[in-house]
Amino acid sequence: MADKLMGWDDTIVALATPPGVGAIGVIRLSGSAAWQVADALFPSKDLQVQLPNTLHVGLLKDGDRLLDEVVLSLFQKPKSYTGEDVVEISCHGSPYVQEQVLQACMLHGARMARPGEFTQRAFLNGKLDLTQAEAVADLIASNTAASQRTALHNIRGGFSAVLKSLREHLIRFSALIELELDFSQEDVEFADRSKFYALIQEALQTTEQLRDSFRLGNVIKHGVSVAIVGRPNAGKSTLLNALLNEDRAIVSEIAGTTRDTIEEVLNIDGILFRLIDTAGIRQHTSDVIEHKGIERSLEKIRKADVVLYLFDLASSGLPALAEDLQRLFIPGKQLILCGTKQDLFTPADPDAWLADLNCIRGSFEYAPFIGISARTHTNIELLKTELSRQYTASAALQDQAIVTNARHYEALNQVARSLADIRQGLDNQLPGDLLASDIRRCLHFISEMTGDISNEDVLDYIFSKFCIGK
Amino acid sequence: MADKLMGWDDTIVALATPPGVGAIGVIRLSGSAAWQVADALFPSKDLQVQLPNTLHVGLLKDGDRLLDEVVLSLFQKPKSYTGEDVVEISCHGSPYVQEQVLQACMLHGARMARPGEFTQRAFLNGKLDLTQAEAVADLIASNTAASQRTALHNIRGGFSAVLKSLREHLIRFSALIELELDFSQEDVEFADRSKFYALIQEALQTTEQLRDSFRLGNVIKHGVSVAIVGRPNAGKSTLLNALLNEDRAIVSEIAGTTRDTIEEVLNIDGILFRLIDTAGIRQHTSDVIEHKGIERSLEKIRKADVVLYLFDLASSGLPALAEDLQRLFIPGKQLILCGTKQDLFTPADPDAWLADLNCIRGSFEYAPFIGISARTHTNIELLKTELSRQYTASAALQDQAIVTNARHYEALNQVARSLADIRQGLDNQLPGDLLASDIRRCLHFISEMTGDISNEDVLDYIFSKFCIGK
Repeated sequence: MADKLMGWDDTIVALATPPGVGAIGVIRLSGSAAWQVADALFPSKDLQVQLPNTLHVGLLKDGDRLLDEVVLSLFQKPKSYTGEDVVEISCHGSPYVQEQVLQACMLHGARMARPGEFTQRAFLNGKLDLTQAEAVADLIASNTAASQRTALHNIRGGFSAVLKSLREHLIRFSALIELELDFSQEDVEFADRSKFYALIQEALQTTEQLRDSFRLGNVIKHGVSVAIVGRPNAGKSTLLNALLNEDRAIVSEIAGTTRDTIEEVLNIDGILFRLIDTAGIRQHTSDVIEHKGIERSLEKIRKADVVLYLFDLASSGLPALAEDLQRLFIPGKQLILCGTKQDLFTPADPDAWLADLNCIRGSFEYAPFIGISARTHTNIELLKTELSRQYTASAALQDQAIVTNARHYEALNQVARSLADIRQGLDNQLPGDLLASDIRRCLHFISEMTGDISNEDVLDYIFSKFCIGK
Repeated sequence: MADKLMGWDDTIVALATPPGVGAIGVIRLSGSAAWQVADALFPSKDLQVQLPNTLHVGLLKDGDRLLDEVVLSLFQKPKSYTGEDVVEISCHGSPYVQEQVLQACMLHGARMARPGEFTQRAFLNGKLDLTQAEAVADLIASNTAASQRTALHNIRGGFSAVLKSLREHLIRFSALIELELDFSQEDVEFADRSKFYALIQEALQTTEQLRDSFRLGNVIKHGVSVAIVGRPNAGKSTLLNALLNEDRAIVSEIAGTTRDTIEEVLNIDGILFRLIDTAGIRQHTSDVIEHKGIERSLEKIRKADVVLYLFDLASSGLPALAEDLQRLFIPGKQLILCGTKQDLFTPADPDAWLADLNCIRGSFEYAPFIGISARTHTNIELLKTELSRQYTASAALQDQAIVTNARHYEALNQVARSLADIRQGLDNQLPGDLLASDIRRCLHFISEMTGDISNEDVLDYIFSKFCIGK
């Protein structure tokens, strides 16, 4: 496959650290001429006779022109990130100086790397399979403990290991069936159908588990979107401040995050919650403009994973809650009812009030009520626990393989479908050659995930989403 | 001096690469416990038994918690940037992961470095003198060939060498004078006054040269500001486009550059030109608002190094030029008269026209006229040459020491003043003890520049202007 990709044996170069001014910047060279290119720019030492995994301080020069004082890190194939010869040039953190160093490397035979090309080479050289390479991009984009853990687990082959085991079982059975076909005149069965049936059942179960993990994986990767809904003055911004007070998430600027609709980001127990503010809802829907406001809120609710409905216990109270829920609620959403300013509210008849509340809640499968006060910080922690309840419950899962990638999810759907076909074939006592064809199809989808089978377009698409220098 | 600075023997840590998402980020540890801190986080190898200047790949763990797969670079004192034990941790380029690694380092005994603290330690450990340390900051901020070259020259001790030679001469003479004082009863002269006079003359000359180089140094560091002045439709934006077409400078976002007034930046032969657009000048100054516009143009002209006056040869022509220059010109500015749309203009009587132009130019010491056409690209290169003429003429200077630092310029003024005092003292045949006191004062100013004499406040101020991680 490698030789299909044009020119992948040349030497590439790129800035590996973020662009901008810093103390240092690292420029990475990879390819058979990496040491040679660096050697041409580093007159004080003969790099070719140095040991790999060593550091060298000196002047970087392009002919007579001094470029910088640098530290070189030498790596020799196959013991490098890409599996090729690699030199990392640690230079001063001026974008101008870095540009000069890059140009000097190109002048001496390197070419500018495409986005993700270093990782693509690591894949082509067998240092990583495709799911591991994709996890590298996830790790770079990680911004919570959970996304960091899942990405590292997958880089180290967590997901690959599950796929590999599945693949080996299928290959072994497939080989036995092929053997049967060779002896087809003699009507023997080398492959034990009942053992294989059990294996397929187990494989289906594993596949289902992986597919199910995608919901959590998606949450780990992209966060949980929480639409905050309520009338004006229901206490939205006060609650936001209370929530964000200590737990504001570290969020980086990553291309493609939909910042326009996100108001604030909150990190609860390693899961990212994106708090989306919706337009305040008013009573009078006869007004055309107000109606549009509600349409917009509905749109945001439709896209959200969780709806956090806020109502002022003392002023608008339960009638507003009942009215708004009727207008706004969309089935299938996790709904949390949040009564604000609890410290200022005592119902005249607590029992009757509770009965009314439960009557409203009755129309929903699960709609917990939490009375809070942002001022006295009452039940803020309880609200957080409720928000993260179903995600942290799955936290135990996080040391298992978790699917975070839509491409893998699609492939797993295909695997599940072909496994079901095989099972049905076994049920119907299909002849070996037909079974073998179903197994090959299933193996194909598994191999697509790991990159054992791949085509250039898919690879190019996957690696083009990486940043330059990785 | 070192022991005066509290706690400088502890181990510091900071992100050395620019913040943000990239392929990798480098976290730098420096101090006596640097290897120990890294060792605690790197279970797969015993770092304490490794050789310096080696690279180590492995997992970074905080107890059981996996942080990242990293490459460690080990440096041993005194062969490191700071002159202390140093470990650089090259981790994945996620701000979240980097934050986790920083926190783990701090948990194991390192503390967050202050801005410039790594370079401050390099200075305290004698790896760099103060002028070299300051040049490191200049190199990081460099954005042209000239600023890169000057900073590198000064990092490598170019400016220091000149100061050191000056200092040694003064110390030698001073020692001889002190000796005379010990034998003062015997009326001997160990120190040859006439030789010393020649030395002081030479020192004064060197100091003057260094002071003069500050103008060029300032230009190299901050660029040349060019105010572009002219009436509406004089062809300002067309010229800007023609100038910027191929030579747009690489400019980084550095705190403190006054971006609000800068329109465009142009790099000619390694010198940065900041093109400042001024409000268009109109004829009728009776209008209060127009008058304000002219006031604003005058303000910009006052701050500029060069005034580029544009006038449309065909339409407003020489009368406008004469009128505007009378209203606008401020003495002491480099002035270039630029007639635009030359391709559309042929004077009815060329000789008379030229005589009129020369009459206007006559009121200025030096005001070259260039007729250009942005459309046909006529004389655009000539204009660039004229702009950079006086700076590139000094380009030969650039392998000599150039003062780029206002602190050094101030100190050099003091040095020059005290050298003049010494010379006057020699002229007046001042007794040795008074001469010695003047020499000590001069040595004091030189030592302040190199940091041989310094106080904590000055050091803190200098290093606080560095970025964190350097």
